[in-house]
Amino acid sequence: MARFFGTPDGVHVGQLFINRRDLHESFVHAPLQAGISGTRAEGADSIVVSGGYADDEDHGDYLIYTGHGGNDSATRRQIADQSIEAPGNAGLITSFVQGFPVRVIRGPHRDSAYAPTSGYVYAGLFTVTSQWMDRSADGFLIARFRLDRLPEQARLVTRMPAEPDPAFATSTVTRRIRDSAMSRELKAMYGHRCQICETAIPGRDGRSYAEGAHVRPLGRPHLGGDKRENLLCLCPNHHTQLDLGGLVILNDLSIASATTLVPFSELKFRSDHQLAIDNVEYHRGLWTRPPRSTIISTSLHAIS
Amino acid sequence: MARFFGTPDGVHVGQLFINRRDLHESFVHAPLQAGISGTRAEGADSIVVSGGYADDEDHGDYLIYTGHGGNDSATRRQIADQSIEAPGNAGLITSFVQGFPVRVIRGPHRDSAYAPTSGYVYAGLFTVTSQWMDRSADGFLIARFRLDRLPEQARLVTRMPAEPDPAFATSTVTRRIRDSAMSRELKAMYGHRCQICETAIPGRDGRSYAEGAHVRPLGRPHLGGDKRENLLCLCPNHHTQLDLGGLVILNDLSIASATTLVPFSELKFRSDHQLAIDNVEYHRGLWTRPPRSTIISTSLHAIS
Repeated sequence: MARFFGTPDGVHVGQLFINRRDLHESFVHAPLQAGISGTRAEGADSIVVSGGYADDEDHGDYLIYTGHGGNDSATRRQIADQSIEAPGNAGLITSFVQGFPVRVIRGPHRDSAYAPTSGYVYAGLFTVTSQWMDRSADGFLIARFRLDRLPEQARLVTRMPAEPDPAFATSTVTRRIRDSAMSRELKAMYGHRCQICETAIPGRDGRSYAEGAHVRPLGRPHLGGDKRENLLCLCPNHHTQLDLGGLVILNDLSIASATTLVPFSELKFRSDHQLAIDNVEYHRGLWTRPPRSTIISTSLHAIS
Repeated sequence: MARFFGTPDGVHVGQLFINRRDLHESFVHAPLQAGISGTRAEGADSIVVSGGYADDEDHGDYLIYTGHGGNDSATRRQIADQSIEAPGNAGLITSFVQGFPVRVIRGPHRDSAYAPTSGYVYAGLFTVTSQWMDRSADGFLIARFRLDRLPEQARLVTRMPAEPDPAFATSTVTRRIRDSAMSRELKAMYGHRCQICETAIPGRDGRSYAEGAHVRPLGRPHLGGDKRENLLCLCPNHHTQLDLGGLVILNDLSIASATTLVPFSELKFRSDHQLAIDNVEYHRGLWTRPPRSTIISTSLHAIS
């Protein structure tokens, strides 16, 4: 059976489940032990947030979730680096890239105000809105995910066998970006032309479209600024690529693959616009953290 | 002063205003008579929904709103065609293309359950999610807009002078499309390559991104189907262009400018995928309705 995304029929937000087997039998979370249900090829369809990782944060409407691997279950501490190739982590990255809805289940968690006192509670559908590499409190490399709760849950539910009712299908697409005044001004300055490929998406009647792209992402935990030195005017394709880590910006403002760091293009700037290099470095750091060994040897070198 | 988008400081959703002057002085809706505040160059920042047009529909979380022009205020009937060049209509189209938030104010309206019994009520920020040309009940050409209420209003408010607090700024961008199983399947079939330009947006680690684009839009009032014969696999740039009427599909499945209907590209199909021609014609009809005179002479011709 193909992996099932969405809320199963008969399950509602807030519903309680006795244990992991109950979740499994209700099609809410298939694995009996793993916190993430998913694979790289199919994406991840559900996660359990249950306090296994000291770095997890539950803010109700959004979560900062730590991937799996390298964790000592007895102490909740990291004892090794995580990898984005571990199946659950790779699955969540696929769900991020593809925009798949992820069922979130809260388990007992001593530090969370949202956790049930016992058993598990279905918290509804979330989407992965940000993914990056970080250092855990213990200094190891961890894969981090921000998940935001989807609004209008009832409408977003994917029914498994039935044809969706078109009367209740929303248009699902909210591509057009809600802009700040800063972003509108910048886009007008560039005549809605992408600073990478110089495309302006044509609308009707002489209108054109571009997007204001924040280099260091807005919102927790990144807290990038809605300022000109953190903004680019990009076409939707290059904006997507920037947000997915399909490209990074080097300090000379050329554009490179995040994997090879080989430049393939460059940003075109007007003379009255520039990016702050710390924003560029922050964005690059989301995908290209140096391995732990490098950092250790750097510190040792500094000490010696 | 530049046009102001968003909710003014000190104004809250549900707030009552005595009359149009009160709205004007509270920076909620500047014009004292016109229903739409806006221009083509700047976009529209607010509208009043007050039952002036027989074809308006208020569904609470979304509205079907008729543009201005050609209306007889005594009878509420259309007596002439509307034009997308009228300033308010052109302003709303700009807000559609640019994704600007539009303040919605409800005035007295005898047919609406959401209207106040007297005075005006601020209904919050909406975005224009669809725009098309239609025939009014009286047979004249009208500009139609669907506006959807934005979720999480408090976070979306644009503060006029102050710097936005990055801790409260959400990431604002929800570009990634929430897919149906149908759409996921189609995108996988095309290897996430756009059916127009064959681009696949690269993510990290060998992943790629495309979007499932509905030709006849989902949701009211269009009610397009979430079916393979209504879906294309497109890159974000071409999806945007399709949604904005920057391109139309001709019946031979070539891609043309909506203005000139001159083909500039064509859709590439796999042998097991095709579009229903009525969906293609519906999409084209959103932007290219024949003028009224053509229709009349056609009917006369048919009769004679």
